[in-house]
Amino acid sequence: MSGRPRAAVLGAGSWGTTVARILADAGTPVTLWARRPEVARGIRARRRNPEYFADVPLPDLVDATDDAAAALSGAALVFLAVPSQTLRANLAGWVGHVDRDATLVSLMKGVELGSGRRMTEVIREVTGVRADRVAVLSGPNLAPEIMDGQPTATVIACADEDRATALQEAVTTPYFRAYTNDDVIGVELGGAVKNVIALAYGVACAMRLGDNLRATLITRGLAETARLGVALGADPLTFAGLAGLGDLVGTCSSPMSRNRTFGEHLGRGGSLEDAQRATRQTAEGVKSCLAIRDLARAHGVEMPITEQIERVCHEGVDPRAALTTLMSRKPKPE
Amino acid sequence: MSGRPRAAVLGAGSWGTTVARILADAGTPVTLWARRPEVARGIRARRRNPEYFADVPLPDLVDATDDAAAALSGAALVFLAVPSQTLRANLAGWVGHVDRDATLVSLMKGVELGSGRRMTEVIREVTGVRADRVAVLSGPNLAPEIMDGQPTATVIACADEDRATALQEAVTTPYFRAYTNDDVIGVELGGAVKNVIALAYGVACAMRLGDNLRATLITRGLAETARLGVALGADPLTFAGLAGLGDLVGTCSSPMSRNRTFGEHLGRGGSLEDAQRATRQTAEGVKSCLAIRDLARAHGVEMPITEQIERVCHEGVDPRAALTTLMSRKPKPE
Repeated sequence: MSGRPRAAVLGAGSWGTTVARILADAGTPVTLWARRPEVARGIRARRRNPEYFADVPLPDLVDATDDAAAALSGAALVFLAVPSQTLRANLAGWVGHVDRDATLVSLMKGVELGSGRRMTEVIREVTGVRADRVAVLSGPNLAPEIMDGQPTATVIACADEDRATALQEAVTTPYFRAYTNDDVIGVELGGAVKNVIALAYGVACAMRLGDNLRATLITRGLAETARLGVALGADPLTFAGLAGLGDLVGTCSSPMSRNRTFGEHLGRGGSLEDAQRATRQTAEGVKSCLAIRDLARAHGVEMPITEQIERVCHEGVDPRAALTTLMSRKPKPE
Repeated sequence: MSGRPRAAVLGAGSWGTTVARILADAGTPVTLWARRPEVARGIRARRRNPEYFADVPLPDLVDATDDAAAALSGAALVFLAVPSQTLRANLAGWVGHVDRDATLVSLMKGVELGSGRRMTEVIREVTGVRADRVAVLSGPNLAPEIMDGQPTATVIACADEDRATALQEAVTTPYFRAYTNDDVIGVELGGAVKNVIALAYGVACAMRLGDNLRATLITRGLAETARLGVALGADPLTFAGLAGLGDLVGTCSSPMSRNRTFGEHLGRGGSLEDAQRATRQTAEGVKSCLAIRDLARAHGVEMPITEQIERVCHEGVDPRAALTTLMSRKPKPE
């Protein structure tokens, strides 16, 4: 048993598995909870997640279970990595097992449909814990690259500086550098809106639009993210950092990105159902764009890219027409 | 003769030629000054610049001359597009011909060696005009894409809002959208430091580093640009806009970028001379990194990427070692 505080990662998907490996490589003992018993058994028996990165061995400090109560018991750091729209229901079943002083860390990049709540807001509502016990980790962190041994950096945001520093120590490895920040809202929103902008970027790729226009899309996308962030109380400078700009550029640049790939399918003329079939899932941005559009309207914030993507995904608007509409907006002071 | 104010573009290189075409397409009559008489003759006789984009016809509203006085006479808008390090000497010979109330617009993205002056500072020093008559145009504007008909956007910064608006009208076409801004320092610095960061990005490409790390490099590069900007009096938010983030992302993403390509040569183990031979020129960032490094030191600003690139370009440091040094810096609050 290491002297380090123990961590639990709830959710053994692509990102949850990757974060469990990072924690272990940083010397933090971690229990990875998998919903399906065969995944937990596979990790315990063969040191590999049979569903994600099945050829990458996990360090010995990674334990696995399908019993959330067992994973949570004694865990000082609780990382939540379940699908965004299932967080509320999952967490309601787990809340009695969370340690009294544990830090709850969101690894999710969605906004709850219906309520418009960010993931840390859902965490606080369901568990009733103080804001300073809730954190978010987000940055340019494409999981396949990290599992491939490529170096990167991330941001850990928490209102409590000591908890942020403890989390930083728990995840820092030679290939994974964490910067701390106290802007939970900004870091969280950067990750969520990014998925929507990446859908638009995918459409632009499919239309073979050039690097000038793609860079403009990233810039204006980040600008509308920051506008919403400021309306919700974020620091605008957060969006120029790794969890804003960094994550957005990383996702848009990578052919491995789910949301960009989904947008490319749409931009080539595929329906939402075609894109879902081809990518075998619904990209996070497809769901979040509705919640984010509603948040923006409720706060009187203009988000033209998000508006267009919502129309493309949920109102049958042609993506090429949507992008052309965006490009013909009248310019004004930046 | 159109009712629009006439423009002059001084410098018929790749970007000067492109801006002349944009102006003409926007309905602004423009005289393009070329240093070499055969270039001016070629444009007048065949409506094409024989040296740049020789297959792209220029609109009839583009006139050309090798006589700078003739180009400047009666021009209300003067765009300067000569090599950065030659601006002072060129402008000294032209200053007597600049109209009393003309707006002087920098299209250049360098910092003067020795003096550390930005291009608009050189313009003001040589001409003695008030700050509100000097502007800068900068953004994600890869010339070959614009000449290919691809849409993009840019930023025009001027302390005088009316002049910024007049410039905006003079260049706005369906494929070229201009946003206005009053932060001359920020817009100008974004373009200059971008070239240095693009060199580092090129090295990362040659090293086959992943999209996570490349996005981190862009983000940290923009952060050090903004730090220098704030020390010089710029608005930090300018760097999140088209002339900061937009230009940086566009340049780094494009295989057409001179500075990125130059960095790739260095990253593959080539010497500065090899890279110069292969690209048939010295990338702007190679010269500017010295001046920017000195500016940063003079203002007590940490610019680790610029420092490393200066060592690579001028002190024989191995670029892979330089990038590894950058990546192993201890993380701190973002």
